[in-house]
Amino acid sequence: MATHKLLLLPGDGIGTEVMAEVKRLIDWLNSAGIAKFETEDGLVGGASYDADKVAITDATMAKAHASDAVIFGAVGGPKWDGVPYDARPEAGLLRLRKDLGLFANLRPAVCYPALADASSLKREVVEGLDIMIVRELTGGVYFGEPKTITDLGNGQKRAVDTQLYETYEIDRIARVAFDLARKRRNKVTSMEKRNVMKTGLLWNEVVTAVHKADYADVALEHQLADSGGMNLVKWPKQFDVIVTDNLFGDILSDIAAMLTGSLGMLPSASLGAVDAKTGKRKSMYEPVHGSAPDIAGKGLANPVAMLASFGMALRYSLDMGDLADKLDQAIAAVLAKGLRTADIKSEGTTVVSTSQMGEAILKEM
Amino acid sequence: MATHKLLLLPGDGIGTEVMAEVKRLIDWLNSAGIAKFETEDGLVGGASYDADKVAITDATMAKAHASDAVIFGAVGGPKWDGVPYDARPEAGLLRLRKDLGLFANLRPAVCYPALADASSLKREVVEGLDIMIVRELTGGVYFGEPKTITDLGNGQKRAVDTQLYETYEIDRIARVAFDLARKRRNKVTSMEKRNVMKTGLLWNEVVTAVHKADYADVALEHQLADSGGMNLVKWPKQFDVIVTDNLFGDILSDIAAMLTGSLGMLPSASLGAVDAKTGKRKSMYEPVHGSAPDIAGKGLANPVAMLASFGMALRYSLDMGDLADKLDQAIAAVLAKGLRTADIKSEGTTVVSTSQMGEAILKEM
Ligand SMILES: CC(C)[C@H](C(=O)O)[C@@H](O)C(=O)O
Ligand SMILES: CC(C)[C@H](C(=O)O)[C@@H](O)C(=O)O
Repeated sequence: MATHKLLLLPGDGIGTEVMAEVKRLIDWLNSAGIAKFETEDGLVGGASYDADKVAITDATMAKAHASDAVIFGAVGGPKWDGVPYDARPEAGLLRLRKDLGLFANLRPAVCYPALADASSLKREVVEGLDIMIVRELTGGVYFGEPKTITDLGNGQKRAVDTQLYETYEIDRIARVAFDLARKRRNKVTSMEKRNVMKTGLLWNEVVTAVHKADYADVALEHQLADSGGMNLVKWPKQFDVIVTDNLFGDILSDIAAMLTGSLGMLPSASLGAVDAKTGKRKSMYEPVHGSAPDIAGKGLANPVAMLASFGMALRYSLDMGDLADKLDQAIAAVLAKGLRTADIKSEGTTVVSTSQMGEAILKEM
Repeated sequence: MATHKLLLLPGDGIGTEVMAEVKRLIDWLNSAGIAKFETEDGLVGGASYDADKVAITDATMAKAHASDAVIFGAVGGPKWDGVPYDARPEAGLLRLRKDLGLFANLRPAVCYPALADASSLKREVVEGLDIMIVRELTGGVYFGEPKTITDLGNGQKRAVDTQLYETYEIDRIARVAFDLARKRRNKVTSMEKRNVMKTGLLWNEVVTAVHKADYADVALEHQLADSGGMNLVKWPKQFDVIVTDNLFGDILSDIAAMLTGSLGMLPSASLGAVDAKTGKRKSMYEPVHGSAPDIAGKGLANPVAMLASFGMALRYSLDMGDLADKLDQAIAAVLAKGLRTADIKSEGTTVVSTSQMGEAILKEM
């Protein structure tokens, strides 16, 4: 049996609590002889700042490079509002993405039927919803230079961020989207603001070219990011795979997640390029939700998004698709039994704590 | 009676049809002696390109500068997909905004009770919703330089847009938001991505400083633009005034408009600074919806957003608040009678054409 090396980075807030449920699952898989995981723990975000005055240490980065997959909780919180910009909690997450080359962020927005009523949208609009948002994760305004604040004197400052994309960056993320669409409902919607942004113009051009050259069998549609956002709210079921840049992806994937009413349930995967020599790719898995400092430490957090993120790791990085299926089934079964954490409770369901939810899912497996 | 000079720019698609209803109203107001308008017509967008190979001519810009208010329809459509970038329909709109210095874009998102069921959101989430989005309109990534596409050879290109804000730009838009909040429910939510963008950091700093110096009586809250977008979908009634930058404002105001189910009903105002000498400000009024080329020329368009935009002109630029009230009441009365254009029809209502709707509102006045 192959040994898989995992780096666990719980981070801040509810990150620690939901990661504990992943550890419980890993321990059981190890002891039951179902799989063989070697895990290491590391600090990231505010937790790392408190210990080492940086959002992630070089030592932890080295462990990330050496692992088969990074499992990431969440970072940030008001406690670190005053820390220097380069050491803010988010900087740890951004360094992981950039240094590991995780350019493809896969964010499924799925509406669990049992939770459709938790959505602020009408049941018929979201029931059965299953979208995959493919967000570019290592380019755009997140990393473009210059990125500065200049003092102009007279109480005036000038702040600059640079939105930058090169052809190869758009080309590779487009391919990820088209490949995924082929395994789904065969449709890709690309979103940008080509009517205002040069990066949008290039984005549109490259996606169109990749489609024409290698994916003519997949349906391709272009929407402006503002109308795309409207369409997400109006009738999200029109979408299958959405591919968009780092900043639009940040906003639109959060909105799509919220539409489903299942925010506490949604996982994500961040993938690098496949290494030609090893056939492997760097990867990181994290829940879509954040560190939720307001409910941290109270056993209120929903561990499903974190567990489902571990499930994506099994599927995309560790070649254990069957085990991932079993985990997904266990999650569905526990929901069907009416167990709910507080964020998704409704009439007639039983509210349980973070660890009770984790245990119930484990028992089901 | 003062004479008001208006420049009417219907633009493309349904722009012409909905502007016709404004003209009908203006003609009646003139002939009934209720007000005195001098109007000029001009071309913008694709219509201007077809005539003059530019998205707006210098002559039309001169008329815009000389008018008391510009009334704008909508621009764009697939017909002009292939025109040179600098002559694309949107360039006309962007030049009007920039050259007239219209830095403050006011976009109310109001849910008309009679239309709450047209929303994809649950009635209780949107009924009674009344948000004002204040979008910065002459800065940010829309106008920052460099804004280029460079050929790098080897089939590679690099596209760059520049997101740029200076203190004074953020200061003045924050004041617009705080002033509006004082006349509303006294709360401002500022949205940016300070955890990723230097412009977000400066935005947050300046809004906080303006608040502290001159608006401490108004409640101020900061949200990251991604969580802000989520909160818009989850529970929009938590907001009163939202102030945000050009690009976030583009996306978030469209989403807010779509939430209400009343997209065809929503007006917007774009305002410049008050001239210290004349006490006047440049202004432009336009519906939130676009040119809808798919339904253009069929009498299907809803003229209410355009008429309500004219109403905003009466209120904000022409000092005719009473007349604006009457127009708003006439719109509400016609809706109460069950008249609907196709976009907002529902069971038990009477579907009418663009011009029938315009006539009914006029009769009501
Ligand atoms: C925490 C923050 C830096 C991050 C982002 O903006 O990408 C988050 O919002 C996300 O979507 O993963
Ligand atoms: C037409 C386009 C340039 C414009 C924008 O992006 O500002 C539109 O979407 C808007 O919101 O007014």
